[in-house]
Amino acid sequence: MKPPPSHLDLLDRPLFAHLGTVRSDGSPLVNPMWFFYDAEANVIKLTHTTERSNYRYLQAEPRVALAITDPDNQYRYLQVRGVVVSEEADPTGAFYQKLQQRYRGRTTPVADRAVRVVFTIRPNAWLARDPLPVPAPA
Amino acid sequence: MKPPPSHLDLLDRPLFAHLGTVRSDGSPLVNPMWFFYDAEANVIKLTHTTERSNYRYLQAEPRVALAITDPDNQYRYLQVRGVVVSEEADPTGAFYQKLQQRYRGRTTPVADRAVRVVFTIRPNAWLARDPLPVPAPA
Repeated sequence: MKPPPSHLDLLDRPLFAHLGTVRSDGSPLVNPMWFFYDAEANVIKLTHTTERSNYRYLQAEPRVALAITDPDNQYRYLQVRGVVVSEEADPTGAFYQKLQQRYRGRTTPVADRAVRVVFTIRPNAWLARDPLPVPAPA
Repeated sequence: MKPPPSHLDLLDRPLFAHLGTVRSDGSPLVNPMWFFYDAEANVIKLTHTTERSNYRYLQAEPRVALAITDPDNQYRYLQVRGVVVSEEADPTGAFYQKLQQRYRGRTTPVADRAVRVVFTIRPNAWLARDPLPVPAPA
């Protein structure tokens, strides 16, 4: 399932995605995250470390949600539901540096590369939201 | 449990909160939402309608998460975990209009006031995040 063309810019721009996960006690968690959308493979990739709580949560519950909101108009956003389909080590930090370049415009040594992993998320639902028209004042 | 004073501005400013909920199938969902933080009662209030999917999900799973990110520096954010402790009707749309005023600076008639509700969330964990220092370039 491909993203709605009207909102592709939200995947291209270096915006943060708010990632929703489910903790081991069944309650939700939300974290702003860097991401990379691979249009050809139609997957979203995240960098993570094996030392974060979310790593453990994702092992137990691979279903995730993301919301990517247009900072220029927060009523316009893309909501994604998907599932983590693979996890790869990032021993050189190459993927982390790809995201550094995307978000910071430069790279630095990846001190924690030994614990860096790449999560690949296959989207199974995209929801594009546009601002509703604002009614006339009361 | 009170919010960290260093990040109180994120509750005061009319920012969007990214709300994480758990759907009836156990998977997560994230939606940007208006909110109001009542400092005296130390609760977060959301406007909602009984017609949205999230309404049903919250009946079944009242635990929620919120992330409120500083638009001027997205590495600075407040993460909240909490539980919906009450739900009240908003038959006049008064609470909705309070949020309209906060976010849009004016009010309009609330056409769906018959189905508007106010969710009150009691926070049980606050996590304040500040930007990490950026290492020197590689």
